[in-house]
Amino acid sequence: MTRTEVFVHGAHATVRGDGFEDEVAVEEPLEVRVSGAALAVTMRTPGHDEELALGFLYGEGLIADARAAGPPADLAANTVEVAGPLLREPSARSFFTSSSCGVCGKGALEEVAVHADPLPHGPVVERALLAALPDRLRQPTFARTGGLHATGLFSPEGELLCVREDVGRHNAMDKVVGWALREGIVPLHPRVLCVSGRLSFELVQKAAVAGVPVLVGVGAPTSLAVRLAEDRGLTLCGFARGGRVNVYTYSVRVG
Amino acid sequence: MTRTEVFVHGAHATVRGDGFEDEVAVEEPLEVRVSGAALAVTMRTPGHDEELALGFLYGEGLIADARAAGPPADLAANTVEVAGPLLREPSARSFFTSSSCGVCGKGALEEVAVHADPLPHGPVVERALLAALPDRLRQPTFARTGGLHATGLFSPEGELLCVREDVGRHNAMDKVVGWALREGIVPLHPRVLCVSGRLSFELVQKAAVAGVPVLVGVGAPTSLAVRLAEDRGLTLCGFARGGRVNVYTYSVRVG
Repeated sequence: MTRTEVFVHGAHATVRGDGFEDEVAVEEPLEVRVSGAALAVTMRTPGHDEELALGFLYGEGLIADARAAGPPADLAANTVEVAGPLLREPSARSFFTSSSCGVCGKGALEEVAVHADPLPHGPVVERALLAALPDRLRQPTFARTGGLHATGLFSPEGELLCVREDVGRHNAMDKVVGWALREGIVPLHPRVLCVSGRLSFELVQKAAVAGVPVLVGVGAPTSLAVRLAEDRGLTLCGFARGGRVNVYTYSVRVG
Repeated sequence: MTRTEVFVHGAHATVRGDGFEDEVAVEEPLEVRVSGAALAVTMRTPGHDEELALGFLYGEGLIADARAAGPPADLAANTVEVAGPLLREPSARSFFTSSSCGVCGKGALEEVAVHADPLPHGPVVERALLAALPDRLRQPTFARTGGLHATGLFSPEGELLCVREDVGRHNAMDKVVGWALREGIVPLHPRVLCVSGRLSFELVQKAAVAGVPVLVGVGAPTSLAVRLAEDRGLTLCGFARGGRVNVYTYSVRVG
């Protein structure tokens, strides 16, 4: 029997097996270290690892702005070292995330929600523009593998500012937030985030912490995503496809 | 402005807002306790919580078979108490999962993979049957909300034995494994698992630990999913739709 082999090329990989060849998305663990100590392991698609680490730590309320991040000299692969100190001690000393994990490391149900400042009023975005945002998410690796989530950051006028892909939907958003931290544009108000998949609690949470007033998804929201968006004053839009979009909360921002 | 309200009815919820009403999937945190101590928090869709807790602990290598599990007398909502003791101490004393998190609580990259016994030979399943399995996944709540993953357990002849839904793909599989533990049919060989979405490392990991020889997904596999399936001797099939299916590893089980 032929053994199946996987050849990794950055964010995508070639799989060769018994009479076939296919392209798949790469998933590999990334260890996030702060001041030399392992803090979290996430399953992610390689690329923009420093942005991922910064966005993740910001979403957890552990850092307030960009800082030095990069591979440590002795552990170049699949490790990012972020300069300390943190704003607070993490709930558990070591906490760990996976492909789609965003609430790791919380010590109790009440701690699930990280603090986020109330969102300011505005902007008002045209409904047709919101419905069209998913088409503007360029996804080069998804086209090749069919296996990646994407998050895009847009101006209120619909200009694409940054797009990131990952096997984990929360990683794609963390990468965008990390990019924005480095650009010095967090809080992200009045900009708009668009995600290629469903809208879970954790994505609304990350968007709210980053100060995003409008979050659009191609897929369905969960009950807790709607509740959190309502509580935080965030405009949550789902099922953005075929020229239509459902507005679940704060429709005052939809023109 | 109208406030948006969410009314939960079990696994689905009604959202009423500014001139609209919609049904969404419920996502709520579940705390898993063992011998009275909090072990993990997962974001899940309510229902079959005991199966979820048992399947999760089994997949982590913390229990070897079914045991008493249920809501504690003083904390009926969103908590499951599982009887101790565990087979080993978890890597971190408290570890935490989310909607799609499966490798939480590991202390190092090397620990990402939990031990799984090698899979025995067989069964041989017809390719056309594998391609047709997703159509046999009954998903009552998905039909209503468009927001849930499903995992189904099938006999090698394609008979549906158990199906579970959840906002988290790994939760749906944990629920099926927990059901099987209670039925006394773990290891699951020679049965087949089918999932409604993509195939990540964590799903292959859980399937391998549960002794499943064939795992079928509607979506794409990741690079690490293919590698782990090859390493464990598991037959991994993706893109099962439209009467077709891709076989990535151990095609010897596909007739």
